[in-house]
Amino acid sequence: MTEPQPIPSPLGTLSRREIPDLVRSQLEALLKQGDLQGAKAILIPVQPVDIAEAIEGMPEAMQAIAFRLLSKQEATEVYEHLDTSVQQVLLEDFKRQDVLDIIGNMSPDDRARLLDELPSKVVRRLRAQLSPTEWQSTALLMGYESGTAGRIMTPEYISVRENMSVSQTLERIRTLSPVAEIIYYLYVMDSERRLTGIVSLRDLVISSPEEQISEIMTRDVVFVHTDTDGEEVSRLIQRYDFLAIPVVDREQRLVGVITIDDAIDIMEQETTEDIYALGGLQSDGDNYFEMSLWTVARRRVVWLFVLLLTNTVTGSIINSQKDLLQQVVVLTAFIPLLTGTGGNVGAQSSTVVIRGMNTDEIRLLGPLKVIWREGIAGALLGTILGTLATIWAYFLLQVELWVAVCVGISLIAISILASVSGSALPFLFRAIKLDPALMSAPFITTAVDVLGVLIYFNIARLFLGL
Amino acid sequence: MTEPQPIPSPLGTLSRREIPDLVRSQLEALLKQGDLQGAKAILIPVQPVDIAEAIEGMPEAMQAIAFRLLSKQEATEVYEHLDTSVQQVLLEDFKRQDVLDIIGNMSPDDRARLLDELPSKVVRRLRAQLSPTEWQSTALLMGYESGTAGRIMTPEYISVRENMSVSQTLERIRTLSPVAEIIYYLYVMDSERRLTGIVSLRDLVISSPEEQISEIMTRDVVFVHTDTDGEEVSRLIQRYDFLAIPVVDREQRLVGVITIDDAIDIMEQETTEDIYALGGLQSDGDNYFEMSLWTVARRRVVWLFVLLLTNTVTGSIINSQKDLLQQVVVLTAFIPLLTGTGGNVGAQSSTVVIRGMNTDEIRLLGPLKVIWREGIAGALLGTILGTLATIWAYFLLQVELWVAVCVGISLIAISILASVSGSALPFLFRAIKLDPALMSAPFITTAVDVLGVLIYFNIARLFLGL
Repeated sequence: MTEPQPIPSPLGTLSRREIPDLVRSQLEALLKQGDLQGAKAILIPVQPVDIAEAIEGMPEAMQAIAFRLLSKQEATEVYEHLDTSVQQVLLEDFKRQDVLDIIGNMSPDDRARLLDELPSKVVRRLRAQLSPTEWQSTALLMGYESGTAGRIMTPEYISVRENMSVSQTLERIRTLSPVAEIIYYLYVMDSERRLTGIVSLRDLVISSPEEQISEIMTRDVVFVHTDTDGEEVSRLIQRYDFLAIPVVDREQRLVGVITIDDAIDIMEQETTEDIYALGGLQSDGDNYFEMSLWTVARRRVVWLFVLLLTNTVTGSIINSQKDLLQQVVVLTAFIPLLTGTGGNVGAQSSTVVIRGMNTDEIRLLGPLKVIWREGIAGALLGTILGTLATIWAYFLLQVELWVAVCVGISLIAISILASVSGSALPFLFRAIKLDPALMSAPFITTAVDVLGVLIYFNIARLFLGL
Repeated sequence: MTEPQPIPSPLGTLSRREIPDLVRSQLEALLKQGDLQGAKAILIPVQPVDIAEAIEGMPEAMQAIAFRLLSKQEATEVYEHLDTSVQQVLLEDFKRQDVLDIIGNMSPDDRARLLDELPSKVVRRLRAQLSPTEWQSTALLMGYESGTAGRIMTPEYISVRENMSVSQTLERIRTLSPVAEIIYYLYVMDSERRLTGIVSLRDLVISSPEEQISEIMTRDVVFVHTDTDGEEVSRLIQRYDFLAIPVVDREQRLVGVITIDDAIDIMEQETTEDIYALGGLQSDGDNYFEMSLWTVARRRVVWLFVLLLTNTVTGSIINSQKDLLQQVVVLTAFIPLLTGTGGNVGAQSSTVVIRGMNTDEIRLLGPLKVIWREGIAGALLGTILGTLATIWAYFLLQVELWVAVCVGISLIAISILASVSGSALPFLFRAIKLDPALMSAPFITTAVDVLGVLIYFNIARLFLGL
């Protein structure tokens, strides 16, 4: 038996035997320094079989990190070369807290640059081994950001091949049903694990036993990718009345499914976020009633502070009109009425528009037509309310007629202003990629309050000839 | 052949032959007068077979009305006595506009008193014949009020018997699947059409063909009644992760099913109503963007009018403090800040509580603890904001120190008041059976605005020694 000869290799003239050892020691050194970028770089020219051997010799905490630094193509091959027991240990390592900490501490950008997709085979095995909670905590290591399909998917599906018969498939279902909860859809994969079709249990049951899956499957499959946003996923499920939707990776390999009950939970959470945003609260899906009071106060104070700031602007404007108010002190009595009504009209318009955006009702009309409609509605409402306010001021508060008329005219102007800004701001915020629900309310309040008192005082000055 | 002899009957000594004719003419007269109560009364002592014959001789528009006036028990028997072709015509009659108008014009109370449940057999046949739109328009005639399970259910289910084998059942599915879209659950009924169990398609597929349905069915069925509220239905489906839920009548006879996609639509609509209510809008599930502007204005003006009224109260209070304001006109500058912040703090508390109520999070804590928590949060927020406002007023607006302190103290008091009333009012409204989402906002605004300015002016008077 001859010793293997030194051969030319990117790592110099080492004997094949020495390569895994050298790679291992270099990797360990770089990982200890925390230089993940460097570690990734030195792995590129190395053969999968050598990387596999190098990884087998590393301490456990490092194995998982080193494996995650491989490109998807490489990871697939390296994984195949690992001993079955080491494959298992590696999957276990993904749960280790020190491993999670290293990836968790990186910025999302770094993470996205560093971590390629995991091979679908590894994802499937990993997802099946982890509890939902463990999956949540290892999801960053997988490269799945919060709220994406990769985070939400479950591995409990049954896959079949095109050339299986209906009766073979039914047999497979009987065998696998204890481990796969959701069997109303079966997913058809080719030899590369690529999703090629879908068969519902219904189709299966009403077909004759000899038919082939390829004859009864639907080839026009609606699927999502691991990085598809959860809200988009639940919208698709709802739109098509699906019971589940498959999740695939970049090469259209099936890695999991998302079921309708999870989609409903996502919808509920998104709704809570929208409602909280409209009510001026931050939310990230935690259970509000389990938070500490300090967290509660922190979540709310930012928003209140913004509103306090806008109120100080209004206050400063009023303060600058002291001469006018000293002269006609009764003008003060109408400030809450004007700003309050303006705020309410604006809130109505923005509520309608924000809810309409989320339920796709608005696309049929287009922003300009919506804003125009709201403006007219504001004018109508302003006229009705302005008339009532004038009557109330003149007859019940018995102010001078010009003051009463001034209040009425201001109310019409403020209502139009409020309904136009209330309907326009959500579109504007969406256009600049801010959450319409979160951002509209304080800006509407600002615009309406500040401009509202300005309009009021200027109309009053006109009447007074000041 | 002997003529039937006159026999004693509640209708006097008529020959059996004459009874249907007499009943028919009496009924026609009463129905023409619109006396449905009277018509119902005269039917009570008559034998089902005679009623059937009487109905067969009536003009079409009256047949359906007369049939609907029967008690459920009687209706079942009368229906059995009708000729198949007449059964069919009767079902057609339920679609007639003049028939629908008669029932539609009655008050809900009268309707509920007059109309007993329809026999499940008739419901099933009727539901299967009518399109969803036709079902909606005839639903009042059925006695199903808007938003109840009876309105939403579909008749597309497959029923099986306990003593059928798995293979027989699969055969039945193959036969019926073109007409029954939803076959993931099969419903087990006894000879009386009573729901006794449920079998999922999954259970069926993984069982051996010889097993009996009674061996594999789940007997612990979760069902709803025709008058169960749609929101409750969708909550049940969501809670148990069902794909569908059966709808039964009073005798637990299966009349339809509600599927998860319909439940999702209900949830979406309820959410829109909640969001609209929080934004101060009325909603009844119409598409807002298809309404005329007059309808839009009408929907909003009621709410705005209520808020205008509360603002006039605030205005009157300010007006009554003219002496104070004349003396220290700068006090005016802080009114929008105080009422605005109070409104925002109150909105946050009520949003959290209202959303929590709908998602059942709050039951774990109980109202008192929730209100207490909110009160403390309000005190915390008020202290932070009050301090900021005092600093701003003193250093930037350069008002006198006592004015700045007065603003700060008022802000703390108003925040506590706002968070307590914002969290307490939804519970109060729920207790008196008003929609918390719809009713809370204007009351919080009133309470906070009115009490807020009162607190502010009184604290100011204290400082001034007035």
